[in-house]
Amino acid sequence: MRLYDDPCSGNGYKVRLILALLGRAYDYVPLDIDKAETRTPGFLAKNPNGRIPLLELDDGRLLPESNAILHYLADGTPFLPVDPFAHAQVLQWMFFEQYSHEPNIATVRFWLTHGVEMTPWLLEAAERKRAGGYAALGVMDAHLSQGRFFAADAFTIADIALYAYTHVAHEGGYDLSGYPAVTAWLDRVSAQPGYVPITAVGR
Amino acid sequence: MRLYDDPCSGNGYKVRLILALLGRAYDYVPLDIDKAETRTPGFLAKNPNGRIPLLELDDGRLLPESNAILHYLADGTPFLPVDPFAHAQVLQWMFFEQYSHEPNIATVRFWLTHGVEMTPWLLEAAERKRAGGYAALGVMDAHLSQGRFFAADAFTIADIALYAYTHVAHEGGYDLSGYPAVTAWLDRVSAQPGYVPITAVGR
Ligand SMILES: N[C@@H](CCC(=O)N[C@@H](CS)C(=O)NCC(=O)O)C(=O)O
Ligand SMILES: N[C@@H](CCC(=O)N[C@@H](CS)C(=O)NCC(=O)O)C(=O)O
Repeated sequence: MRLYDDPCSGNGYKVRLILALLGRAYDYVPLDIDKAETRTPGFLAKNPNGRIPLLELDDGRLLPESNAILHYLADGTPFLPVDPFAHAQVLQWMFFEQYSHEPNIATVRFWLTHGVEMTPWLLEAAERKRAGGYAALGVMDAHLSQGRFFAADAFTIADIALYAYTHVAHEGGYDLSGYPAVTAWLDRVSAQPGYVPITAVGR
Repeated sequence: MRLYDDPCSGNGYKVRLILALLGRAYDYVPLDIDKAETRTPGFLAKNPNGRIPLLELDDGRLLPESNAILHYLADGTPFLPVDPFAHAQVLQWMFFEQYSHEPNIATVRFWLTHGVEMTPWLLEAAERKRAGGYAALGVMDAHLSQGRFFAADAFTIADIALYAYTHVAHEGGYDLSGYPAVTAWLDRVSAQPGYVPITAVGR
């Protein structure tokens, strides 16, 4: 198994984290998105959407989209419930992550940590994303005040997906102090056996 | 089963379409998002994220997120493959839809069809979204030039998710004439037995 990734990516970290939790070995292929290394003809032949993370199986099959990769790796493990409604609830939070959370929280972090020049248009975009990001954190906090994890009363790939960018939200200028259920949940995730930090890459 | 929805919503149409394809009856509760009817205390108690579509089961359980609802309703039907990799590929395209497609294609359609005042900031946002939307259509066209449907060589919920806003992309000013594999696929979807148009609502 081979993971194409940029070490700074939270979407990539989701995959690195579940592989660590499952104790699975893999080859790690670091790419630099700042140098457009996911937009070369060679990489576009593997993922026409030009993005990491991308999982390559030993037989050559390719799977992009961090949350689809999480689902594939978690299938048949305790990280993905089999009950159809619980399964759908896990996916509910993963779609929430891609629609209401990541585009607001990860994108602002990217702009601030990758030295993107903040034009007036981007400054207003960041302000709008900040409002959306805090709204998403509010939804998460209300939900987590009623349970330990997002779905199925268990630690699942919904938690992994939402953890990736929430725990580094401060790097995008977010202040989590008003979200105590979220910060308590962050501690529950990092206490999982086999947990690795976002800085850990490779087998 | 009860569906909370706005009749103009493509995300809601995904659910209406699969319910029609499955021949399942349901109660329909229309809400007007332009009047903030998804932001009332009553609705927020059902979905704290304040959005439609929302599915309510007969026992009161609630499920938001269009693509999670599709997954729940398709579980155990031919619209969702059981092979783990094919299942993950279906989800790959559904996450692509929520991340790279819907925010570009649906949002511009919303601005144009709901009379949103196009400020200079929004005009530049629309231009950026247009570029992202055409990039997504390019990825779809390349993929569909190699197969009839998005995953598992069969009509699945990945097709339903991507069909919803692609077939009305022209309402957002998109020109699909440069994407022949996409337009041929639109015809294959609308030829499915039980198909209903986006204007059809209710049981
Ligand atoms: N929806 C995708 C998003 C992936 C994504 O946006 N990846 C970024 C890095 S976090 C990337 O590859 N950017 C480089 C580029 O788009 O050229 C996922 O969840 O995997
Ligand atoms: N990711 C969600 C998006 C749902 C969504 O954005 N719904 C819109 C209508 S298409 C809505 O309810 N807007 C009203 C609001 O946000 O107040 C899904 O796929 O269901």
